[in-house]
Amino acid sequence: MNYCSHCGSQVEHKIPRGDNRLRYICTGCDLIHYQNPRIIAGCIAEYENKVLLCTRAIEPRHGLWTLPAGFMENHETTLQAATRETQEEANARLTSISLFCTYSIPHISQVYMMYKGHLVDGYSSPGVESLDTQLFDEEQIPWDTLAFPVVKESLKLYFADRNAGKFHVHCGEMSRDESQQLSVLNYPIEAGKIS
Amino acid sequence: MNYCSHCGSQVEHKIPRGDNRLRYICTGCDLIHYQNPRIIAGCIAEYENKVLLCTRAIEPRHGLWTLPAGFMENHETTLQAATRETQEEANARLTSISLFCTYSIPHISQVYMMYKGHLVDGYSSPGVESLDTQLFDEEQIPWDTLAFPVVKESLKLYFADRNAGKFHVHCGEMSRDESQQLSVLNYPIEAGKIS
Repeated sequence: MNYCSHCGSQVEHKIPRGDNRLRYICTGCDLIHYQNPRIIAGCIAEYENKVLLCTRAIEPRHGLWTLPAGFMENHETTLQAATRETQEEANARLTSISLFCTYSIPHISQVYMMYKGHLVDGYSSPGVESLDTQLFDEEQIPWDTLAFPVVKESLKLYFADRNAGKFHVHCGEMSRDESQQLSVLNYPIEAGKIS
Repeated sequence: MNYCSHCGSQVEHKIPRGDNRLRYICTGCDLIHYQNPRIIAGCIAEYENKVLLCTRAIEPRHGLWTLPAGFMENHETTLQAATRETQEEANARLTSISLFCTYSIPHISQVYMMYKGHLVDGYSSPGVESLDTQLFDEEQIPWDTLAFPVVKESLKLYFADRNAGKFHVHCGEMSRDESQQLSVLNYPIEAGKIS
């Protein structure tokens, strides 16, 4: 960020009085330009024991398999965002949707909100950001050509819950260290316990 | 938004090619400035059957009671944000934290992520954004002087779960219509069911 989006003056990168973090502050109108994480909403869409995946028609990870998901827009709910992305990327309609997992990815300031739901009629076809859409049995999941770690982790949790006969809402985080090694932390499932 | 934060040229408000929403687009460098919802993370902090509330020392809702919560920062997790806000607003330390509820508030493009956790030692004192901090029994909660609807709804869900002997992870949305009437929708608890 170089200029104030409000008045067009140059911005400085410094800690505002009473704050403890570097912010972009306008040298003209003193406006502080806060920057915050973005939400990516998506869905594990089920149909007859299969799960819907799409191949990406866009970068990054062009040609790899992913769950339908994308940046949440202003003036919508996380559920609407997940439903919209499934419609846009796979022309697929959802019902019986509920939150399945949320992952924080602090090194890229993203928070994933992954729902799970049923495809209304099993139909899907590629939207403009997809090359292909396909329903996969657990045994057919292309684990080695999934686009993002969060897709792999969400699917692992999903099949583990399904095979155990009970779904939980999962919460966790993933990050990369300086050598780009990925670490995934799934928080304990504690929501059901009375402390 | 009037100016491009990258190059300082004026922006236009129009729909980019291949998109279906109005965006701010730079007339100089063509950069599209996406705007996305912000996350507010907070915590229902328990201690000996009581819950921690703070009175707000800042606008909006100066002097009203709230749960410790605030805007999530870049490069942190939602759990770190909830813990940090509890520390900053109430000088209180948490343990045994787990996600309790998430609410989308589309008319103001906010998503709340409310955790629940235990106070390590029961200690709290006002941070710079609080006038007072206090532990409340369920019977003492100041329902008529709570700062925000999301605080009231989170506490209602919390005590309902606690009294029923089982906590769930809740998901819902709240919005205001043109007459400013608030509507709250709590999604059904379905996570535990195998479909």
